[in-house]
Amino acid sequence: MAAVKACSVLITGANRGLGLEMVKQLSEVPCPKRQIFACCRDPDGPKSEKLRELAEKHPGIITIVCLDVGDPCSIKESAKKVSSLLGKNGLNLLVNNAGVLTHGTMQSTTDQEMRDAFNTNLMGPFTVTKEYLPYLRAAAKASARSGMSCDKAAIINISAGLGSMTQMLSLYSHFSTFSYSVSKTGLNMLTVYTAIELKQDEILCVSIHPGWVKSDMGGDKAPLESRDSVADILQVISSLTEKQHGGFLDNTGKTLPW
Amino acid sequence: MAAVKACSVLITGANRGLGLEMVKQLSEVPCPKRQIFACCRDPDGPKSEKLRELAEKHPGIITIVCLDVGDPCSIKESAKKVSSLLGKNGLNLLVNNAGVLTHGTMQSTTDQEMRDAFNTNLMGPFTVTKEYLPYLRAAAKASARSGMSCDKAAIINISAGLGSMTQMLSLYSHFSTFSYSVSKTGLNMLTVYTAIELKQDEILCVSIHPGWVKSDMGGDKAPLESRDSVADILQVISSLTEKQHGGFLDNTGKTLPW
Repeated sequence: MAAVKACSVLITGANRGLGLEMVKQLSEVPCPKRQIFACCRDPDGPKSEKLRELAEKHPGIITIVCLDVGDPCSIKESAKKVSSLLGKNGLNLLVNNAGVLTHGTMQSTTDQEMRDAFNTNLMGPFTVTKEYLPYLRAAAKASARSGMSCDKAAIINISAGLGSMTQMLSLYSHFSTFSYSVSKTGLNMLTVYTAIELKQDEILCVSIHPGWVKSDMGGDKAPLESRDSVADILQVISSLTEKQHGGFLDNTGKTLPW
Repeated sequence: MAAVKACSVLITGANRGLGLEMVKQLSEVPCPKRQIFACCRDPDGPKSEKLRELAEKHPGIITIVCLDVGDPCSIKESAKKVSSLLGKNGLNLLVNNAGVLTHGTMQSTTDQEMRDAFNTNLMGPFTVTKEYLPYLRAAAKASARSGMSCDKAAIINISAGLGSMTQMLSLYSHFSTFSYSVSKTGLNMLTVYTAIELKQDEILCVSIHPGWVKSDMGGDKAPLESRDSVADILQVISSLTEKQHGGFLDNTGKTLPW
């Protein structure tokens, strides 16, 4: 099985669910000089206990970083810390994973729920991407590899099938997540623009739907365990090339319709 | 040529560009009992002069209504006025036309530009749709027509080809409108949800791309005059049935990819 060999990886929303599982699996793969920046809003709070335990098990590999994707100042502060720890080889892989999900129909969704989803699921990845772009560019320049890969320089936006206009018709009878769906389709447009603008820099960018996963977000009825979804995603990530650049893939690597 | 026969029509952003032209063309079609609610932010300001002149030419047909789509209170106030003028036959046709466009790449777009586009292009139609839903439902119930049509009860969201993920790859070299594109793809998801939720009420909902139009928004280089785009759109609108429900059409009636 292919493995992600990116030296430096930054993951937002890393204290629970898919983010935490991704930090765990990446820290277990033998990879020289691996640096994982595990970002979360409240590193010292009770919701980050499992991440702190994991970081203690892998000293020198996992660095916990305070980053609230809804707060531009916090994003800027996080980059100061991360850049001081990154070498001149820059940041290889940025995973925009932090997100919020509220259930609700178009008719029941409130203005505040729309604003929360917009801030976290769309403005978060937008601002984080812009802030970390110099370090991704540094990684692309420092790499001796030709073409695009996640081991060189890449942005993975964790999107959702619920952000697919095409799929909503069949998904709606099971899930009604209006604010989430709107924000995730906006995130997919961010992926498209980012891919177009960063093509010349050879920075890869894709949206990934992790599948329907058992988690705080996905609930108990989901068919997929976090560990299986993340194993799938890492497998997909490790095999990405410029062919998938700007695309929308699920956890099995299949291209999804917008 | 088919004509829109909806008795009551509400159009946002009706003081200029496509909105003004739509009010003009609808007011010129002979249609008994036609009521056009031409909504704009500042009915008494200099930017609404042409609309005021038009309303004077068609007394009893055009009612100018103060409506700022970025302000939920203003939307609520507008509905009080409109509902007092609507008969028990409700509102047949809502055209969510008001919008803002800022040029800019993903990298150059500011947080404020993102928030402005989100508020006007997405939260506006979302809030207007919810506020006017009772009057659209009344129209659907009062109608003797079977199935769906714009003359019975319908919501037209004025979207854009620039909100199509599929089309952005070819459009980007000519247009870079990141905040606009993100907000319009979100608007398309609003169309999909609205279509699903209002299907049982027989309220039609589609997204329409008006083409690239010479206007304050489209600039001088655009190939299409406002009057031709609006004539096209009204032709498409008049022929809509449940087959196009939840779809994304251009001004010629062609389905666009998301």
